[in-house]
Amino acid sequence: MRELLSQRARGVKRSEIRELLKLTEQPGIVSFAGGLPDPETFPIEEFAEIAQRVIKEDYRKSLQYGTTEGDKRFRQAVIDWLAQDGLPLTLDEVMSTNAAQQGLDLICKVFLDPGDVVYCELPTYLGAIQAFTAYQAEKIGIPIEHDGMNLEVLEERLDEARTAGKRSKLIYLVPNFQNPSGITLGERKRKKLVEIAEKYDLLIIEDDPYGWLRYEGEPIPSIKSYDRYGRVLLLVSFSKLLCPGLRLGVLAASAEVIGEIVKLKQPTDLCTPSFTQSLAYHYLDAYDFRARIQKIKRIYKEKRDAMLEALETYTPEHPEMYWTKPQGGFFVWVTLPAFIDATELWKRALESKVAFVIGTAFFLDGSGKNTLRLSFAEQKPEVIREGIRRLGHTIEEAISASVA
Amino acid sequence: MRELLSQRARGVKRSEIRELLKLTEQPGIVSFAGGLPDPETFPIEEFAEIAQRVIKEDYRKSLQYGTTEGDKRFRQAVIDWLAQDGLPLTLDEVMSTNAAQQGLDLICKVFLDPGDVVYCELPTYLGAIQAFTAYQAEKIGIPIEHDGMNLEVLEERLDEARTAGKRSKLIYLVPNFQNPSGITLGERKRKKLVEIAEKYDLLIIEDDPYGWLRYEGEPIPSIKSYDRYGRVLLLVSFSKLLCPGLRLGVLAASAEVIGEIVKLKQPTDLCTPSFTQSLAYHYLDAYDFRARIQKIKRIYKEKRDAMLEALETYTPEHPEMYWTKPQGGFFVWVTLPAFIDATELWKRALESKVAFVIGTAFFLDGSGKNTLRLSFAEQKPEVIREGIRRLGHTIEEAISASVA
Repeated sequence: MRELLSQRARGVKRSEIRELLKLTEQPGIVSFAGGLPDPETFPIEEFAEIAQRVIKEDYRKSLQYGTTEGDKRFRQAVIDWLAQDGLPLTLDEVMSTNAAQQGLDLICKVFLDPGDVVYCELPTYLGAIQAFTAYQAEKIGIPIEHDGMNLEVLEERLDEARTAGKRSKLIYLVPNFQNPSGITLGERKRKKLVEIAEKYDLLIIEDDPYGWLRYEGEPIPSIKSYDRYGRVLLLVSFSKLLCPGLRLGVLAASAEVIGEIVKLKQPTDLCTPSFTQSLAYHYLDAYDFRARIQKIKRIYKEKRDAMLEALETYTPEHPEMYWTKPQGGFFVWVTLPAFIDATELWKRALESKVAFVIGTAFFLDGSGKNTLRLSFAEQKPEVIREGIRRLGHTIEEAISASVA
Repeated sequence: MRELLSQRARGVKRSEIRELLKLTEQPGIVSFAGGLPDPETFPIEEFAEIAQRVIKEDYRKSLQYGTTEGDKRFRQAVIDWLAQDGLPLTLDEVMSTNAAQQGLDLICKVFLDPGDVVYCELPTYLGAIQAFTAYQAEKIGIPIEHDGMNLEVLEERLDEARTAGKRSKLIYLVPNFQNPSGITLGERKRKKLVEIAEKYDLLIIEDDPYGWLRYEGEPIPSIKSYDRYGRVLLLVSFSKLLCPGLRLGVLAASAEVIGEIVKLKQPTDLCTPSFTQSLAYHYLDAYDFRARIQKIKRIYKEKRDAMLEALETYTPEHPEMYWTKPQGGFFVWVTLPAFIDATELWKRALESKVAFVIGTAFFLDGSGKNTLRLSFAEQKPEVIREGIRRLGHTIEEAISASVA
């Protein structure tokens, strides 16, 4: 069978990280590894009420095939919500997707030929690396600073690619409380990025699953809000704001781009489930989504605070050790002294019943061996404290062993 | 933006048929054009009961991210159901998909490079043509006879492709009550097809959304049941047996093939919605699926009978005019005298407030200009009779006009 595989399939390996994640699911382990939201934030009572209503009263629409663009009622409700954040959009600029990951896949499907170049943050979201690999793109990583992607380096790489005769197509970013680093892209850089996209004739994918989960500081306008010529493709996900089990999101882009993507979504799955779109529409229509987000933010802020405090308390003092202080989202990014190998640390941590993701997974170039990603979203504050206590102890031992 | 498009996107046109379908949605028109199931067959009361239960009692699993392979409980329930039809499968041979169309797309993603050859029936399912086009495959149509694909012609074409140095990869068939023709692939041909796949080293996609909707005659074993070496990939859809709005199906294939497809489904959408899988699992677990299928079959059989009787009654006698008598599924395929152009007829039919799909849409080679597809699934029997009366009158006028 192997000789029948496409070139694309031959290039994709089974994710080692996901294999390692399975090991972290043993009982008794405090796992900061997965990026799952806390199920206690899901709108249980509301969904139970709506689901019944949608099935009984709206089954002719909600359980039938829908259009490839998506349920107009759901899309309009999302538009109304985004308009309150200062992002005016029309129906033909918004389509439904099976969460943001499908939006990302469809963008690749529409824009990438093998060998085309995609620029992403170093480190970046694992699912994006896998999507670009599946479309046989060349991936170029751009280092991030405290306020996001280094745009000087980006321009250098763009020039080099042009000189080498390569076709640069996409810049991919998670602008808010990035997965995995927790870092947020600054306002000045957002404007500048749009100028770069215009100058070099390429598109920006703004993947924003965490932007509405800001626990402190002022919101920064989306990259898309600076977009004059339809070069920004914004992915919105409801996986963290409602629940992941619906697999629901939208893609906002120019009507022209949406038209192209709809043409290729059609043979991909015909349409996003009418049922999940109906459920989300009726939620947005009948309940107070903003109040819900406020409530979720309080829950996650407490978890973030617990993790940051515990890191201060339980990790050893070392001049080369530091971590990000994310203003929102799910993730804290820890940099260890360069002489620590996070893979070795991972094994020892597992023995101490605490788990994280090794940072290398999020790099394209094998770097980040002394980094790790911690998610505070899933565990309760007291469990977070205990987990970080264990992790701190493991790190302390690793440092002592190296020094000794 | 156009110069940024991938080669794949440039090759895909917006479906004209789908544009025409919109015209058939005017009030007062009896449409036989869409292939939608009758919403009155959806399990409304059962789903309303289950949805509440799933959300309240099982939200930690049903509303959370799931594995890319799919919910084990749902897959096992499907395996148990298929085993009763004489198809033994294991968990690693079955994965969840966003209905059969996604299964088809993922198979293409894993096996097709640009220029690879796919063989399909002439006529064939429109969504398959679009999927193969999106992967830049070469599509070769094989004529169908009363018992399905002409396998002598298939072997000739396979030999020609081999001589021309082309890589043949897939044979695609809808074996039961085919969309669009209503024709069923004979048992002898099913066995022979598997031999051909072995001989020419290729895979068979058995797309079977209608097989369980047989209104008369004996069931024929699936092509997959003759598969010894993992060359058959079976697509099962719940769009017609439960409802399309869940977008739920499974792909059954060898563990090796499933492994490859899971690797590429991961970056496509992470996973199929846990919520829709839970809903279907709890349905299969708590209710009598076989009794439900019996009930649906009675509803659709009455519609089929109404359409076949009305065609006998209301269409003009002509030696070159005939239609298929499907033993199941949704579709009747009408062949008109060669001098009738179905596109012209379509316009006149729309004036008479009746609609169908022009047969050419389902061919790869521009042929079938005198054919049309009628779906009896959506309308009530009395509406079917009235629609066919109008259509018969329109055909009669067209024949008279040509003769005169």
